[in-house]
Amino acid sequence: MMGPALVGIGVGPGDPSLITVKALSELRGADRVFGPTMAVDAVGRAESIVRQAAPDVVVERLVFAIIEDAVARRAAHDQAADRVAECLATGERVAFVTLGDPNVYSTFHHLADRVLERRPGTPVTTVPGICAFQDLAARSGTVLVDGVERLHLVSAVAGPQAIDVPLADPEAAVVVYKGGRHLPALVERLRAAGRLDGAVVGELIGLPGERVGSLALAASGPAAYLSSLVVPPRREARDESTGAEAGEP
Amino acid sequence: MMGPALVGIGVGPGDPSLITVKALSELRGADRVFGPTMAVDAVGRAESIVRQAAPDVVVERLVFAIIEDAVARRAAHDQAADRVAECLATGERVAFVTLGDPNVYSTFHHLADRVLERRPGTPVTTVPGICAFQDLAARSGTVLVDGVERLHLVSAVAGPQAIDVPLADPEAAVVVYKGGRHLPALVERLRAAGRLDGAVVGELIGLPGERVGSLALAASGPAAYLSSLVVPPRREARDESTGAEAGEP
Repeated sequence: MMGPALVGIGVGPGDPSLITVKALSELRGADRVFGPTMAVDAVGRAESIVRQAAPDVVVERLVFAIIEDAVARRAAHDQAADRVAECLATGERVAFVTLGDPNVYSTFHHLADRVLERRPGTPVTTVPGICAFQDLAARSGTVLVDGVERLHLVSAVAGPQAIDVPLADPEAAVVVYKGGRHLPALVERLRAAGRLDGAVVGELIGLPGERVGSLALAASGPAAYLSSLVVPPRREARDESTGAEAGEP
Repeated sequence: MMGPALVGIGVGPGDPSLITVKALSELRGADRVFGPTMAVDAVGRAESIVRQAAPDVVVERLVFAIIEDAVARRAAHDQAADRVAECLATGERVAFVTLGDPNVYSTFHHLADRVLERRPGTPVTTVPGICAFQDLAARSGTVLVDGVERLHLVSAVAGPQAIDVPLADPEAAVVVYKGGRHLPALVERLRAAGRLDGAVVGELIGLPGERVGSLALAASGPAAYLSSLVVPPRREARDESTGAEAGEP
């Protein structure tokens, strides 16, 4: 008897085989599994991954629509938290599945905060998941960081200027999330900075309809909301005489 | 018959249950699995994870010692590449396991470059793995990034000044790898920047002897080479009225 608890489970970016063994065991150990969705009759992406990776697990939907009106959004989130709290009140171990990692740009903690208002002291844990940028790097053959290179992860949801500061560092990889709407402006900025070389874009990574390819060749129009960009650090010809240990004195 | 190929497999940071289903299936589908080690009679960390996650898989060791002499290091790496090329020559599908993710500060691509010198055109792929900072965030209950916050990942192997640029951005999470040797100096810089609040350190994350805790309370001496630090963005009291969707106009 473990007692009521809330666990946020990262199920990875799309490919159901990128789920971890721990996520599978937490899914199967939970009394109830919730998944976010845009509408009660729409299968969310995280739910779709669970269906493939663990067909025996039933996912109950919580509506987290992108609602422009703050009051309506708050009401929807309250309703979701009420439902989770209701299950916790009966002693259930409750899981919430999330695309990617629950600690990286995820709604999980907003839900958890609201649940904790209702049931203070509820144990809240998370299980990490593979992030979209990691799978994009793998699928595009991109070495993200090596030696003393840096990596900047930004969200371009508020506009393409999000990449201006990271682009000032030529030895940093830049990962851009949620930049689909601003793709042409992002490409323009990368071109101006001389950083289009090796830059890749991924849409629906690991999902039916996936597009992964060179950013320079990408359509000039907007891409999907959940598109990811990976811009590798500017690199001289790789020096074969050094290794990852090269920075070690 | 798939033909010879080299695949870099991320096995996660330490906890064997953080391996992905895809990594397991690639391990079992390979004709040979190599793992890096410091000495031929030492079980490397990645090998240790494979032993627990997939006891049926045999790992052959390749010595990647941290050798200070560049010529000796080059010789050791050449020897490793020779051995991999030998297996590819017989048509084997060869896997190389790596801690964390093979595209994030991994020796895999250095090995792959040397193998490609010997056998140009060999297909090289990677399977992403959970990174240490993701598990550290999960185990310490740290929300890494939310809304339009940013994340900077740096290696402090060359010194504590690696965090100076990322620290200039108060709305960014800072993840520091390989900073163990410089821990006191890193703590000093974080304190001066007012960023110790919520900062956590992890050593041997998910392994026997794990230490995860507040950086402010960490020992004043150096920590292990593979220590990770996570410094969350500076946050005002969390605004309950907004969600991850808040940046969406």
